[in-house]
Amino acid sequence: MTSSASTPAYDDQNIFARILRGELPCHKLYEDDASLAIMDIMPRGDGHSLVIPKAPSRNLLDIQPDALTATILNVQKLARAVKAAFDADGVTLEQYSEPASGQTVYHTHFHILPRFEGVALKPHAGAMADNARLAEQAEKIRAALA
Amino acid sequence: MTSSASTPAYDDQNIFARILRGELPCHKLYEDDASLAIMDIMPRGDGHSLVIPKAPSRNLLDIQPDALTATILNVQKLARAVKAAFDADGVTLEQYSEPASGQTVYHTHFHILPRFEGVALKPHAGAMADNARLAEQAEKIRAALA
Repeated sequence: MTSSASTPAYDDQNIFARILRGELPCHKLYEDDASLAIMDIMPRGDGHSLVIPKAPSRNLLDIQPDALTATILNVQKLARAVKAAFDADGVTLEQYSEPASGQTVYHTHFHILPRFEGVALKPHAGAMADNARLAEQAEKIRAALA
Repeated sequence: MTSSASTPAYDDQNIFARILRGELPCHKLYEDDASLAIMDIMPRGDGHSLVIPKAPSRNLLDIQPDALTATILNVQKLARAVKAAFDADGVTLEQYSEPASGQTVYHTHFHILPRFEGVALKPHAGAMADNARLAEQAEKIRAALA
C-alpha cells in the first residue's frame, strides 16, 4: 500500500461519530461545544479516557485548527482530572493517525492514560472492561472535574 | 514516592531549556514565537521529531493554555511535514507527563513519530543517532515544511 500526502475521507459511521450522535452509549466524563470526553471501553489501564472533538475529522492530519485547539485544552483538563482521581504518578497522552500508527477508529481522538510507578500499560485494543468498573471510574473522574 | 495534585517546580537547567537559550546545539526544523521543532537525538524511528513550547512549563499538567494551543498547531504542522518527508503511512503523537509516564526531560515536549506499516518503534531513550543522518533527515523535513 502506498501512502500519500492526503488523508482518506471521513466516514460518519465510525463508532465515535455514532456515540456523538447518541446512537451508541458511553461513559461520559465531560462535554462542551467542542468535544466529548468518555471512558475507553478497552482500557490499557485504570482511568484510560478519550477526548473526542465533535467536528468530523479523521485524525491529527486533517482536523481543523479551531477544533484542535479547543480539544487540546480539554485534553489538559482531563489529564489533570484523571491524575487527581486515581492519585496517579503521571499521565501519558497518545494520538494515532492512520492504521500504521495504531489508529482503529477513524474519528480524531486523544488517549489520556494515568500512569503509576512500575505499572506498564496493557496492550492497545485488548480486553473489554467490566461495565460496572468503568462506571465507577467515570464517577471518580467526573468528581475530580467538578 | 507519593503523587500529588501539584506539579513539581520547573528547572531551567533541563536540556530543552538550554537548547532554547542557544546553549546546546540542535537540528532545528521550525521555529516561531511559540515553539521550536527539532530532531530527537535518540530517535525511535526515522523522522522522530519534537515540538517544544518556548514558554517554561514542565509538561501537559502545568503548561499555560495559550502556549498549549499555539504548540499543538505546530505539532499538526510537523505531523503533516514528517508524513510527507518520509512518505510515511501514519503518525503517532506522544506526550509524557512525569517520570511514571516515561518523561525524562522536564520541559514540555510532544513526540512526533512517522509510522510505517510493519515497523515497530524502537525503545524510548535508546541509542544516540548518527549526526549526519539526523542532519539529512532534518533537511527533508524542512523541505516538506517550506
